[in-house]
Amino acid sequence: MKQPPPEPRKISIYLEDLEVGQKYATDSYTLTKQEILDFARQFDPQPFHTDEVAAKDTFFGQLVASGWHTVAITMRLLVGSGLPVEGGLIGMGAELAWPRPTLPDSTLHVESEVLELRPMRSRPERGLAIIRSETKNQAGEIVQTLVAKMIIPRRNPESA
Amino acid sequence: MKQPPPEPRKISIYLEDLEVGQKYATDSYTLTKQEILDFARQFDPQPFHTDEVAAKDTFFGQLVASGWHTVAITMRLLVGSGLPVEGGLIGMGAELAWPRPTLPDSTLHVESEVLELRPMRSRPERGLAIIRSETKNQAGEIVQTLVAKMIIPRRNPESA
Repeated sequence: MKQPPPEPRKISIYLEDLEVGQKYATDSYTLTKQEILDFARQFDPQPFHTDEVAAKDTFFGQLVASGWHTVAITMRLLVGSGLPVEGGLIGMGAELAWPRPTLPDSTLHVESEVLELRPMRSRPERGLAIIRSETKNQAGEIVQTLVAKMIIPRRNPESA
Repeated sequence: MKQPPPEPRKISIYLEDLEVGQKYATDSYTLTKQEILDFARQFDPQPFHTDEVAAKDTFFGQLVASGWHTVAITMRLLVGSGLPVEGGLIGMGAELAWPRPTLPDSTLHVESEVLELRPMRSRPERGLAIIRSETKNQAGEIVQTLVAKMIIPRRNPESA
């Protein structure tokens, strides 16, 4: 369901405030068939994402969300209700896997864990955080894993 | 600029039709400030993506597109005018990097190369293709690299 966009929170955290092993969980978001069609017609117009009837004769056998839609919803959940680093979620890169498709009317939420934290050698005022996020449907099945490498400001660049 | 969605092409290619080293280039797409704001308000509501004034005081110093918007435009270009495997672009996973941001009014295009092709051991009627895509702006600067692992049907599952 279309929900009003969350208000972004202020930058409230620095590298020093995160700990390896910390976990976060987001609110949930229900993705309707119409939203799947709208996103796919704009960004990923393949029959299994845009046409409920034609989708039956494809790899998936039914309409499914674009993986890029799943990741966009994941980001929205992380910014709106997940990691406390909004305003500072600067992505350098990411690894994604989609072990199963997101079906219409799935209710998704995201569970994240801080995997690694380190200062950036080239820019001592910044740090790198590697955070793994699992996006799960209402049955608890993982529809996406996202390992993101993010830049986060450091509070004390002089310290180790 | 909003452009009409491309008509998806039929599945026209099998693993055997691709070759390692093959290259493809897409049409281009100009991403307006309004599109950047609209996407970000829905999916990535952070000040450097949603507020031209507030963005000046952020990491980027100006409004920039969400990386997830850059990848969505990349997908649209690949499906509409790039790889000849539409209808069969089943992504298993991807690695992304954003070496520089996508600015408002950037004109993006994508250059792709087939890196690796192999049969899937567990499903002999399918193959895996690893394809690297660089998304470049009008100055030829790389704003994103995407290495995607995709499932592609095989024409001759019995052959090696």
